[in-house]
Amino acid sequence: MSTGVRRRMGVEERRQQLIGVALELFSRRSPDDVSIDEIASAAGISRPLVYHYFPGKLSLYEAALQRASDDLASRFAEPHEGPLGARLLRVMGRFFDFVEDHGPGFSALMRGGPAVGSSTTNALIDSVRQAAYDNMLSHMGVVGEAPPRLELVIRSWISLVESTALIWLEGKRIPRGELEAQLVHDFAALAAVAATHDEELSTLLRTLLKDEPGDGPFADLAARLLTLASS
Amino acid sequence: MSTGVRRRMGVEERRQQLIGVALELFSRRSPDDVSIDEIASAAGISRPLVYHYFPGKLSLYEAALQRASDDLASRFAEPHEGPLGARLLRVMGRFFDFVEDHGPGFSALMRGGPAVGSSTTNALIDSVRQAAYDNMLSHMGVVGEAPPRLELVIRSWISLVESTALIWLEGKRIPRGELEAQLVHDFAALAAVAATHDEELSTLLRTLLKDEPGDGPFADLAARLLTLASS
Repeated sequence: MSTGVRRRMGVEERRQQLIGVALELFSRRSPDDVSIDEIASAAGISRPLVYHYFPGKLSLYEAALQRASDDLASRFAEPHEGPLGARLLRVMGRFFDFVEDHGPGFSALMRGGPAVGSSTTNALIDSVRQAAYDNMLSHMGVVGEAPPRLELVIRSWISLVESTALIWLEGKRIPRGELEAQLVHDFAALAAVAATHDEELSTLLRTLLKDEPGDGPFADLAARLLTLASS
Repeated sequence: MSTGVRRRMGVEERRQQLIGVALELFSRRSPDDVSIDEIASAAGISRPLVYHYFPGKLSLYEAALQRASDDLASRFAEPHEGPLGARLLRVMGRFFDFVEDHGPGFSALMRGGPAVGSSTTNALIDSVRQAAYDNMLSHMGVVGEAPPRLELVIRSWISLVESTALIWLEGKRIPRGELEAQLVHDFAALAAVAATHDEELSTLLRTLLKDEPGDGPFADLAARLLTLASS
């Protein structure tokens, strides 16, 4: 892709270019298997020059992960319009786009390992989880601190989404569109289970369900469960 | 607890004693905050003698984790008798006993961190998850490899159990008995959701439900969901 003329990049521009190149490599293979030499070669610069911008592979990895985290968190943004189930389904679609783009790097990161388990990377993962949590709360119309059972439902569902994506990546044996729909159903199911233990949550859920269409994911789920139970 | 007479322990006996002492300390606080000096002092031996049996804190930690993993895996054992829901509820009770006994160490391990994230510890965690998975399959009467959607349900539910326990440990704001019951409901709900996408799973679930009592967790859940949906 060389133009024959190498334009001199500014420091920040060069850093951003390196982060982009590194993110691409860290996404496609486990970060442990990516060397600084490869990054240098892919960026078209020398190994010492990489070290001029980043003290080592970990700092470059953390910068790449920061960019990926910002990218992922931005995908949670969804207009507060229309039924909740449909909004959630669109977010799931964008989440699986991200997972598909960064598969091996996402797996390595979430499963932990020598190159990927630092306190910085853990903090980045937690910040994305927090962004997902805050978004869910706001879409559910909850202002301020959530009741404990609602917090548990949302946070444990987020972990279910992560683990479902990781299992899917292992062999992609289930179509991702099906998993996206299933995870929305799962949220409804987990919330409904928790609501059976919590009057406040039950009231909140009833309010949300009022806006759900009769052919929406929740109505569909309830009907199918009933069929199963009565068969 | 000294009897005034220090009996000379054999090598294996001393190792086992040290593992027990270390497990106790690693369970009560984050392993990063436990020093070899403390372990030596709690075992009533000198620091150099600890190093005689274990080359360093990590190897002692890994040995303690091996014992804890064996202990946890043994709690999954449950007679193949009676309704599945009731069996699962008993296993959840023993799992939460374990989580309560090893709270801070369990959190530190599962959240990853400097002292706890090695390839050996990751392999131990995976082996316990595999034992849980195998047990679930066998209780569901599945022989051989599971269909992909059933595998996904079981494995993602196991991760839901883990994350629910971790969130519970943060403040214990929800009674654990309620969470144990809720996780059994969650399994039924996740399996039912997946069954709406998979005829084979649906058939398996119907077979299992035949043995569930009318007042069991699944019937209870279906009735409550219907109430929610129709209100």
